[in-house]
Amino acid sequence: MIRFNNDYSRGTHPAVLRALADTNGDSYGGYGIDPWCEKAADEIKKHLACPDAAVHFLVGGTQANFTAISACLLPYQSAVCADTGHIHAHETGAVEHGGHKILTVPAKDGKIDAGQIEALGEAYRSSPIQEHITQPRLVYISFPTEYGTVYTLPELKRIRAVCDKYGMLLFVDGARMGYGLAASDVTLRDMARLADLFTIGGTKCGALFGEALVITNPALKPGFRSCIKQNGGMLAKGWLLGVQFYTLFENGLYFDICRRAVDQAGRIRAAFAAKGVPAYVDSPTNQQFVVLDHDQIEALEKKYVFELDHAVDDTHMCVRFCTSWHTSEADVDALAEDIKNL
Amino acid sequence: MIRFNNDYSRGTHPAVLRALADTNGDSYGGYGIDPWCEKAADEIKKHLACPDAAVHFLVGGTQANFTAISACLLPYQSAVCADTGHIHAHETGAVEHGGHKILTVPAKDGKIDAGQIEALGEAYRSSPIQEHITQPRLVYISFPTEYGTVYTLPELKRIRAVCDKYGMLLFVDGARMGYGLAASDVTLRDMARLADLFTIGGTKCGALFGEALVITNPALKPGFRSCIKQNGGMLAKGWLLGVQFYTLFENGLYFDICRRAVDQAGRIRAAFAAKGVPAYVDSPTNQQFVVLDHDQIEALEKKYVFELDHAVDDTHMCVRFCTSWHTSEADVDALAEDIKNL
Amino acid sequence: MIRFNNDYSRGTHPAVLRALADTNGDSYGGYGIDPWCEKAADEIKKHLACPDAAVHFLVGGTQANFTAISACLLPYQSAVCADTGHIHAHETGAVEHGGHKILTVPAKDGKIDAGQIEALGEAYRSSPIQEHITQPRLVYISFPTEYGTVYTLPELKRIRAVCDKYGMLLFVDGARMGYGLAASDVTLRDMARLADLFTIGGTKCGALFGEALVITNPALKPGFRSCIKQNGGMLAKGWLLGVQFYTLFENGLYFDICRRAVDQAGRIRAAFAAKGVPAYVDSPTNQQFVVLDHDQIEALEKKYVFELDHAVDDTHMCVRFCTSWHTSEADVDALAEDIKNL
Amino acid sequence: MIRFNNDYSRGTHPAVLRALADTNGDSYGGYGIDPWCEKAADEIKKHLACPDAAVHFLVGGTQANFTAISACLLPYQSAVCADTGHIHAHETGAVEHGGHKILTVPAKDGKIDAGQIEALGEAYRSSPIQEHITQPRLVYISFPTEYGTVYTLPELKRIRAVCDKYGMLLFVDGARMGYGLAASDVTLRDMARLADLFTIGGTKCGALFGEALVITNPALKPGFRSCIKQNGGMLAKGWLLGVQFYTLFENGLYFDICRRAVDQAGRIRAAFAAKGVPAYVDSPTNQQFVVLDHDQIEALEKKYVFELDHAVDDTHMCVRFCTSWHTSEADVDALAEDIKNL
Repeated sequence: MIRFNNDYSRGTHPAVLRALADTNGDSYGGYGIDPWCEKAADEIKKHLACPDAAVHFLVGGTQANFTAISACLLPYQSAVCADTGHIHAHETGAVEHGGHKILTVPAKDGKIDAGQIEALGEAYRSSPIQEHITQPRLVYISFPTEYGTVYTLPELKRIRAVCDKYGMLLFVDGARMGYGLAASDVTLRDMARLADLFTIGGTKCGALFGEALVITNPALKPGFRSCIKQNGGMLAKGWLLGVQFYTLFENGLYFDICRRAVDQAGRIRAAFAAKGVPAYVDSPTNQQFVVLDHDQIEALEKKYVFELDHAVDDTHMCVRFCTSWHTSEADVDALAEDIKNL
Repeated sequence: MIRFNNDYSRGTHPAVLRALADTNGDSYGGYGIDPWCEKAADEIKKHLACPDAAVHFLVGGTQANFTAISACLLPYQSAVCADTGHIHAHETGAVEHGGHKILTVPAKDGKIDAGQIEALGEAYRSSPIQEHITQPRLVYISFPTEYGTVYTLPELKRIRAVCDKYGMLLFVDGARMGYGLAASDVTLRDMARLADLFTIGGTKCGALFGEALVITNPALKPGFRSCIKQNGGMLAKGWLLGVQFYTLFENGLYFDICRRAVDQAGRIRAAFAAKGVPAYVDSPTNQQFVVLDHDQIEALEKKYVFELDHAVDDTHMCVRFCTSWHTSEADVDALAEDIKNL
Repeated sequence: MIRFNNDYSRGTHPAVLRALADTNGDSYGGYGIDPWCEKAADEIKKHLACPDAAVHFLVGGTQANFTAISACLLPYQSAVCADTGHIHAHETGAVEHGGHKILTVPAKDGKIDAGQIEALGEAYRSSPIQEHITQPRLVYISFPTEYGTVYTLPELKRIRAVCDKYGMLLFVDGARMGYGLAASDVTLRDMARLADLFTIGGTKCGALFGEALVITNPALKPGFRSCIKQNGGMLAKGWLLGVQFYTLFENGLYFDICRRAVDQAGRIRAAFAAKGVPAYVDSPTNQQFVVLDHDQIEALEKKYVFELDHAVDDTHMCVRFCTSWHTSEADVDALAEDIKNL
Repeated sequence: MIRFNNDYSRGTHPAVLRALADTNGDSYGGYGIDPWCEKAADEIKKHLACPDAAVHFLVGGTQANFTAISACLLPYQSAVCADTGHIHAHETGAVEHGGHKILTVPAKDGKIDAGQIEALGEAYRSSPIQEHITQPRLVYISFPTEYGTVYTLPELKRIRAVCDKYGMLLFVDGARMGYGLAASDVTLRDMARLADLFTIGGTKCGALFGEALVITNPALKPGFRSCIKQNGGMLAKGWLLGVQFYTLFENGLYFDICRRAVDQAGRIRAAFAAKGVPAYVDSPTNQQFVVLDHDQIEALEKKYVFELDHAVDDTHMCVRFCTSWHTSEADVDALAEDIKNL
């Protein structure tokens, strides 16, 4: 079986594995205070044009999300996100468990827009009963979104402007950041300029595990390591994260493997389009959501593993095909051929 | 100015005030362990046909709601409610602050139905990724709702049946319980039989302050006083609550004053209907929501205080008129006359 | 039976009851936005020499304590208090339930000193593993303490100086503030100058219920009403608190009744001392802790209710006698006589 | 420099690294549902004589501790532990952040005894004001302790008996479990029989990272995966943990490497004893705490890295030497020789 079901079903890129093996016999200080974390942070900061950014390394995405969000908010403040947002839909209420309400707005293809945020900001600002509602203080967007779509630079700028207008923070969940960067004209430099804090995902982008969290807003930096520790996100052998991110960013490996996966996903998208299979959303990244009928699903399931997302109607489902650092050209060729013959 | 803006703008029914004055010089044990709380609980239990119910007295509604809900839920469990539900819309995220997600469903005139709850229960039961979502464990409904509507007995029974099917608890927020009982065929006995726990509001129904919380589900009783204390809801001079609820329930005063207010509200509703002013929702209780144009609002505002709920369109607003224990016949007469002359 | 067991076993001073009755028929805005709360705050502020202080009114002490403390702290910050402190010993873990650790230091007669606080501040400042421990950020002291003792002005100034040195906030729990002021040279003006926030207790000092919370530190003021609402401490009929505190502070009634109770407690203390009954602690306020043998306890229990605090040895107990606004001279005379005849 | 400062300063045992490399190219299901986690759990269960135990794998110790503890407790329940316990002293208030108070008792060499637990249980049971204090519901002990000491089997049985008497749960933090087992007659089978839940540490015992959490009490099993996910402890590539624990337990490697480290620590202990250097505590495991004077420290620091724990007096410090899977015989020989020549 050839797996296209997700982008976290295998270990890590061989270069990362090698780096972990090479450093396995050496001794380091614990809890993220070590030369590898420092070097990895430096490599990442080269892309940010923000030398004062704080870069932390956490193990997982849910952990990074709720740790960051709860560090930003006072008790009566809430986070705004799409109703398809990962923190709302797939993290077992972790943000609420940490004490904060999430205010959702309807997503369009996984995205929200500045107008929706403005409406919430305005509703709070003009409310005669502010004490009875939560203050929308942080906007959470994912880049790319859970449906593989990306925000354009103008869209991000408009969101930033609304955040500024209403005193909101912008947090970008970049669990698949590499694929988003490869598929758009948005850069890490833009992220550093427009977001108050954001993650650069490792787990789904070539690392064995790990997420980098970048904080550019100076007010959010103090005490952050305490928040990581308190929330169980501080790895004792923190250098394992530093080694991985250094390897991925030292020579641009991170960007290369994500771009390659995005190209492969483009070939799959093209194959479906050529066959007349409708896209569920028009995604430029490594996740492709298409609508297949049950016969087509059955045919492809003989050879491929992919994710059944949800039923669209009685005879059709929205399904997901993912590429990743380990997707081979041969597998994509085979899939494209089989799509043609559906 | 004659006030119809809400049902908590004055002190308490004279009989309650008298009872507080009469007992002011006596000494009692603290924290709700006193003869008055015991007697009040006994009076309430006469209406429940549930001699083993636990009856606690708390000061306020938000406090009662989040204390009850958090006492019922494990960390990964969530509450289901209408998107107009008080815990979701007007309690500053208190339930989430206590660690629990709220799953909302669209309300119709403030109400939700069994089918909506079933859909959530089924979605969780059939989810292949249960660990990534919260378990809908408690259904919160308000009786009457925030829009003055009430559930019929068959509706409540269907909701109970769905709760049973999916292992959910039913919590009824009865901040205005007296008005709901007066406007429907539902009784406290039905509440005790159908809900796992529910409140009987005092603040908006004739008391100076206070909410009775009734727990009929035996599994929810242990430790509840500890939860009240931990959440700051245990009044040192707890007998003040007992005295009030005893006075209200001893001779049916609670039911009488609420029925009277509902009758008065009915006269206001009739006056608007006769004038052709559309109801925003068809409410049988003490809250009347109608749609007025700006001229009508201006005219009535000369003499009456009422609540501007929200804009319906550029020239109309939904407004609320409330009656209460202190509403006089003369004031209702005057309002009805002025409505006629709009 | 004559009750000396606590200072919250009766309703309220007749003047307060009268004020509540007098305003019972009037209408007010809800949630603490009303003329009475404003007037009460103004009266209190006259004593503070701090015109910009924020004054909020909450129903109960536990509620006021955890609401204030959690509003002050970031997630990884902790509160410092005596191991006899109310928040540590008698509030069902409310502060921890709100997410914050309490660091305790051994009390001496209910009090802690600047040196103990400094030690904690220094330990944190010099810790090589700060992220693994909580930051002691707020010092909680009670005035008077749970054992009736009071801090002297020099002691408070030393505590303030240490707080300044280590960037800590000072919170004073004044559940029995009136008795403390009557028994020391510390004034509310000193409190306003030395503490960042403090409470002025009503429940135990003549009110029916209610605590005033004074915030003098400007950084702590924003959003505080949201915190009150979120934690269930916002009384719908907020003017009930305003009416009470206005009545107590308008003509100095609060100070008068507390001073009188302290004088009466002094007579009880003197009676015990004359009899050779040892004081458990040397308290100048309305709570007197003495060590009685079982025969003495039995003798006094025939006529008086008092609190058995804890066993001192096999034949002796530490017991508490409290005076309050309602303690009569006759009752104190009787008790003094009976002590003499023990 | 030769490092004896801790047991988590290097990567992983070569066999574990090899296993991770061997499986790096294979695809697995996510979130701990994979054949490796299943096989690892089976291997661990062979040692438990408890076929129905649930075995979960988490990334880190703090995470495992607070996830387990908060999953066990109702809001008003607290954990009991030594004042030197890791959850109290070194986890940034994570348990309190999750809403639960910790009740500490004074440790003796890192250990607590059944009598101390009984005193707390009895105090709660006999309290007339139970609602004002937290219920001690879970006993946390570490095995071995933070000072390297171990509980004997009779001690554990007495603690279990007290837990049974007062309805308490027993949680054993086994971050260094392997070293404890090697240094005592307690077995994993005893742990499974005596504790309700316990961890088997990987991070400090040969793994790259990871802790196994064993739940034997059936009441604690439901919903636990939801708690792990909600608290950010569910590794997307969960098989990485399964592969490691399978490798460590398949042929007893875990026990072998820990026993060897304990033997080496014994040689270091003997060397200090022979030299007349006093042990700070008498530890039979891989952590040795001794009291050195400043000259001795300076001498040893030329060649070795070890941890300065705390000052004992003006001229002496308590320091820690740790062995681990990677400690070589040559390094121990050198250290023993240098100790002799101090």
